[in-house]
Amino acid sequence: MARVIVDVLPKAEILDPQGQAVARAMGRLGVDGVADVRQGKHFELEVDDTVGDAELEHIAGTLLANPVIEEWVVRRVS
Amino acid sequence: MARVIVDVLPKAEILDPQGQAVARAMGRLGVDGVADVRQGKHFELEVDDTVGDAELEHIAGTLLANPVIEEWVVRRVS
Repeated sequence: MARVIVDVLPKAEILDPQGQAVARAMGRLGVDGVADVRQGKHFELEVDDTVGDAELEHIAGTLLANPVIEEWVVRRVS
Repeated sequence: MARVIVDVLPKAEILDPQGQAVARAMGRLGVDGVADVRQGKHFELEVDDTVGDAELEHIAGTLLANPVIEEWVVRRVS
């Protein structure tokens, strides 16, 4: 089995209200020095050896992320 | 400015309904070979040089994750 990480974030040009809310909360709670926050989804998958990189990209782009408004990165960890 | 990534996941012993839902959806859509899926939150922060590692851990454990049910990893990327 292999462990694969897929990180999904809103595209840069897309409004990220969750990230902005977290950034504002930091300011209210006296946390300085954080200029920007982007929030997305983090997936960890256990896949067997039959699942190739092309299929992982397909899984990420159809099931885990919305390609219209989101970008993603697929990383094999082990 | 430095870029910091914080990945938050439910603790292993905590039920992960979102991850299970994604895993079941894969089976229904004919995607084989994916044994398990865990879903969490992915944060990317832009921080200035005054924010040290200890403060990042504090930010992660108080604002970005719930330490009772979630675990997190902080990584400085640039």
